[in-house]
Amino acid sequence: MIALEEARGRILGALSPTPAETVALPEAWGRVTARPVVARVTQPPADVSAMDGYAVRAGDAVAGAVLRRIGEAPAGHPFSGMIGAGETVRIFTGSFIPRGADAVLLQEDAREDAAGVTVGEAVMAGRWIRRRGLDFSEGEALIPSGRRMTARDIGLAAACNHPWITVRRRPRIGILATGDEIALPGEPIPAGGIVSSNAHALAALVRAGGGEPVVLPIAADDRAAIAEAAQAARACDMLVTTGGASVGEHDLVQAALGPEGFALDFWQIAMRPGKPLIWGRLGATPVLGLPGNPVSALVCAVQFLLPALAVLSGLPAGAPPTVRVLTGAAIAANDKRFDHLRATLAEDAEGRLVATPFARQDSSMLATLARADALVLRAPLAPAMAAGSEVEAILLAQLGI
Amino acid sequence: MIALEEARGRILGALSPTPAETVALPEAWGRVTARPVVARVTQPPADVSAMDGYAVRAGDAVAGAVLRRIGEAPAGHPFSGMIGAGETVRIFTGSFIPRGADAVLLQEDAREDAAGVTVGEAVMAGRWIRRRGLDFSEGEALIPSGRRMTARDIGLAAACNHPWITVRRRPRIGILATGDEIALPGEPIPAGGIVSSNAHALAALVRAGGGEPVVLPIAADDRAAIAEAAQAARACDMLVTTGGASVGEHDLVQAALGPEGFALDFWQIAMRPGKPLIWGRLGATPVLGLPGNPVSALVCAVQFLLPALAVLSGLPAGAPPTVRVLTGAAIAANDKRFDHLRATLAEDAEGRLVATPFARQDSSMLATLARADALVLRAPLAPAMAAGSEVEAILLAQLGI
Repeated sequence: MIALEEARGRILGALSPTPAETVALPEAWGRVTARPVVARVTQPPADVSAMDGYAVRAGDAVAGAVLRRIGEAPAGHPFSGMIGAGETVRIFTGSFIPRGADAVLLQEDAREDAAGVTVGEAVMAGRWIRRRGLDFSEGEALIPSGRRMTARDIGLAAACNHPWITVRRRPRIGILATGDEIALPGEPIPAGGIVSSNAHALAALVRAGGGEPVVLPIAADDRAAIAEAAQAARACDMLVTTGGASVGEHDLVQAALGPEGFALDFWQIAMRPGKPLIWGRLGATPVLGLPGNPVSALVCAVQFLLPALAVLSGLPAGAPPTVRVLTGAAIAANDKRFDHLRATLAEDAEGRLVATPFARQDSSMLATLARADALVLRAPLAPAMAAGSEVEAILLAQLGI
Repeated sequence: MIALEEARGRILGALSPTPAETVALPEAWGRVTARPVVARVTQPPADVSAMDGYAVRAGDAVAGAVLRRIGEAPAGHPFSGMIGAGETVRIFTGSFIPRGADAVLLQEDAREDAAGVTVGEAVMAGRWIRRRGLDFSEGEALIPSGRRMTARDIGLAAACNHPWITVRRRPRIGILATGDEIALPGEPIPAGGIVSSNAHALAALVRAGGGEPVVLPIAADDRAAIAEAAQAARACDMLVTTGGASVGEHDLVQAALGPEGFALDFWQIAMRPGKPLIWGRLGATPVLGLPGNPVSALVCAVQFLLPALAVLSGLPAGAPPTVRVLTGAAIAANDKRFDHLRATLAEDAEGRLVATPFARQDSSMLATLARADALVLRAPLAPAMAAGSEVEAILLAQLGI
């Protein structure tokens, strides 16, 4: 058995980002940039008004002065002339400042009538002008390579005139559930069998991590079926199997995949739920073999598959993000396996997060995992702790799973 | 000007959830259930083994006893006979417990050879058996109506045998950018014009909120163009416009939409960035008019459009989630408008989140908004505060935008 962090390090160290592809701007949301997005225009493209009002020469705009209005310049319709002494042009937020003007008189500080525009309050030079390039300038790298594009980044890339974005291809993850006893939902359940839940839960998790799941047909527990399914993995950036990783079973997977060129780097990880896990390579395709138990499969996916998706997507290698919370109940001392307690979250009177582990932590209880908000992390040999102590936790909603 | 919370209350109070539709299980990820998901099977379907080992009668399994192995029952292949006195059956995790057995002897506590299976350690009745229905029972409502399905819920719905899920239709949000001065990225920019960024930023935000954006062609600042675009809105669950909401401009939108049956409930909201906002109804379609300024548009979208998407999706009405953080810099007293300071986030030495507002908060600076991690919330007339004080903040990454 090796430690969880070592296992994750070995997995992530073996992966590299997918190649780049070019997508239309709207498709770039949530994708990871493969090149920086560099401004193609300057914004604002000229000095512009920050408010609705009048473009003036500050020297003229003393309180009580009456200026002659020589035109109007709505946003998008610049004034082509020049403002001379005692003159003004009606402008609006975003309007280019006409030549000759050096300030904006707010409309609420002016009165316009047949006589002209009367200045209610004096204006200082430069007032209410947004300078050319205040937001960004042509040639500026606005969005770095290796960033997952937010809605705001989409807006920024649009504003700096990019209709196309170069991003990492979504990692394509083959998902293979094995077992004689499992059936897809709605299909006939064999005697002694159960409904398969892992493949589609993992597919959703792959989507949450920015990947593209390829759910392979369920493979029976025999060499030929597993070997055939493995063929499909060659087109994937990673093959994830579920089931077939526990003692005894792994011999079958190894026997089935060996002739297909599988290099097994098998280990058991000192974690709970989890423990049996396969890590290896089928030709060029990395293979992550998760336990068949649905809770174990999902917890292992949080610790290994989501970080793997990040690296395949061009993001930095690392552990899932954690937060410090208070435990809502006493927790017993831990043994030598890294533990993940399924817990609900609530806020206490002071607004602090409190995670309360479920009393029963049996790793077969998928309904409990679905109801959980957090995984409370317990390092190997962590001592017992009283209710109210600080613990690290993974917030499941934060991971989108 | 009305208060932000009142504005949100009026918007959300006018909305109701979209109708239900039935989707295949994998498509239900991230969708909001319109009916509870009720277990169609019991899990486990029978008493099963929690470990690899031997099914035994506890009364027989005393240390040193040698049991006669009468068969094997891998998961999915139940043993059809009955275990009698002194007998045992080889079983595995998930195997049904054969009739006659009442406990599992762990394989590490047993030795099997030609003589039989020698018990290394005595076993108590019930040990290592997962009882029928431990996870869930047929008829149990496992996932409530009105819940956004997580990857774990997808697994649970699969496990309880649902190939189809009834969810709320994704809210279809028409997005209409107006203005003579804007051009789509990559298209010719008119003299005095800029590249349009709002429509696609808002489209990505709508996706992040679980909606389906419909980006309408840009409408020029004239009655006919706006009226034509508004026609397209009739097929949408909401029309969001951007631009045309500030003083002066709103007359144009009102004049254009009035003959189309637009009932305007116009207001200005005491918030920054923001303030100009249109709320009304075009026939049966709610209309939210956001400011044209990209930062204002996105901040208003966080405060009004994301909560609106939640209600349209069948989730509870409410404000965007906030967290308490420390401010990394002193903050000046606020005026009467609710303020949103764009800020970066970092962790201090004790692991607490510290939000540091950007020195310059000009509402035209989209690059600053894109670089921000949080919006620090400042209530109207909030007093000045020193660095290190506690403030409420909206974490933008948590919203997926």
